[in-house]
Amino acid sequence: MTSDYKYWENVPTRWKDNDVYGHVNNVVHYSLMDTVINEWMIRTAGFDPRNGDSIAMCVESHCQYKAEVSFPDTIRVGLRVGKLGRSSVRWEVGMVRASDETLIAEGHFVHVFVDRGTRRPTEIVDPVRSEMQKLTVA
Amino acid sequence: MTSDYKYWENVPTRWKDNDVYGHVNNVVHYSLMDTVINEWMIRTAGFDPRNGDSIAMCVESHCQYKAEVSFPDTIRVGLRVGKLGRSSVRWEVGMVRASDETLIAEGHFVHVFVDRGTRRPTEIVDPVRSEMQKLTVA
Amino acid sequence: MTSDYKYWENVPTRWKDNDVYGHVNNVVHYSLMDTVINEWMIRTAGFDPRNGDSIAMCVESHCQYKAEVSFPDTIRVGLRVGKLGRSSVRWEVGMVRASDETLIAEGHFVHVFVDRGTRRPTEIVDPVRSEMQKLTVA
Amino acid sequence: MTSDYKYWENVPTRWKDNDVYGHVNNVVHYSLMDTVINEWMIRTAGFDPRNGDSIAMCVESHCQYKAEVSFPDTIRVGLRVGKLGRSSVRWEVGMVRASDETLIAEGHFVHVFVDRGTRRPTEIVDPVRSEMQKLTVA
Repeated sequence: MTSDYKYWENVPTRWKDNDVYGHVNNVVHYSLMDTVINEWMIRTAGFDPRNGDSIAMCVESHCQYKAEVSFPDTIRVGLRVGKLGRSSVRWEVGMVRASDETLIAEGHFVHVFVDRGTRRPTEIVDPVRSEMQKLTVA
Repeated sequence: MTSDYKYWENVPTRWKDNDVYGHVNNVVHYSLMDTVINEWMIRTAGFDPRNGDSIAMCVESHCQYKAEVSFPDTIRVGLRVGKLGRSSVRWEVGMVRASDETLIAEGHFVHVFVDRGTRRPTEIVDPVRSEMQKLTVA
Repeated sequence: MTSDYKYWENVPTRWKDNDVYGHVNNVVHYSLMDTVINEWMIRTAGFDPRNGDSIAMCVESHCQYKAEVSFPDTIRVGLRVGKLGRSSVRWEVGMVRASDETLIAEGHFVHVFVDRGTRRPTEIVDPVRSEMQKLTVA
Repeated sequence: MTSDYKYWENVPTRWKDNDVYGHVNNVVHYSLMDTVINEWMIRTAGFDPRNGDSIAMCVESHCQYKAEVSFPDTIRVGLRVGKLGRSSVRWEVGMVRASDETLIAEGHFVHVFVDRGTRRPTEIVDPVRSEMQKLTVA
């Protein structure tokens, strides 16, 4: 249920998101996941992708498409944390058309935090971890 | 002066807009022009890109970059019509960082309206034309 | 094993594929899947995305990322058909760095063919179907 | 004349390059400029965008569109240097459809080299400068 998502953000579509079929291309949904997750991490959880010691690498992503959506629709993107490990986090993402709340897609996205230099997994530390816990579903 | 633009819209940046230099890539600014112009044409001027008799083709575009901007900044995009011809329109576009109104780019974008089938230039008709006149600068 | 893929195509990366971490962003891999699958369908199987009676809609996609790759690397994309149904096809995709054959990602992508007008599922017909059968793994 | 360009590279289009009009969107042409210029700088001129002391920032770009091109066409991109200054370079770019050499677009793209830290203009040094001189038209 979309009521399970803990954080929501509106993302307007762009002209170029539509492909030749006149709907938002399947690739774009992943860009929205990446955008809302990183914006939340930066603005809410104090993550610094440019200068922090660790970076968040995507090791897996998945999406199921439920309905078409088209520019200039706005998409509401919901986030929750499905699993929070020592160095990894499984984001679960829902997307609805803002105008009528139709579910358009659901997916997940797994980040592993790695050391910027060595690319070896590194612990997710506070405040990022403590903020992620607030998005975790039981 | 940015006060010359007649219509403004906020466009949030996306994670992938940033390139390896950590700022919004020069290509993205054109995507924002295309987005705001088309959104205005669809929502305000009744243009129908999917089923209308004519489509709007870009024949020229140009941008001067004044300052860097980075995800997750929001960009305010301003529009005005510099020249309105029988079948063509010259859009003039300004972009400022929403948080502090710093000018980040100015450019122009020329649309020629063509028949969807023949691709021959076709007259810009009302209500699109009359709405464009409202954005025209003297 | 990458030897299982039946069709391979080289796709050069683009400057903007790299994100702020200096590697090809996770979203791009899906664009490569979409590109190689559609190019194969158009060039080899006679699919016509603009004028044909049916269009191919993505209903699910998935990717596991194994290694980083960066512009200006070229990515070799391998395709096979994992399951061919009446109206749907499950594509399985592998990606290797062309210079050293390092496996960088594996994923799948499910297309449902639908009627262009009604968006109802429609049978995959020859020659698309017969060509897909040649890519099917036992 | 396209015979004036000194360096050519083939860039295949991608599915998502096509917009709702079924042709490569105007934004994509700038991505191709950025790609071919940077690939040439990295592979031929020894430029290192990730670790070098200076980075190349786009301060102006422009494109005139001459003909439509559509996925899965391949675009041949030609480069020459129109003006080589102390810290800036004006690239001139032509694009033709690879299959029939139809001119599809011409544009220019101005890079200013700046210090990675201070973002102040910095001299273009060898071997980048000497390689650029080989692309300069009289």
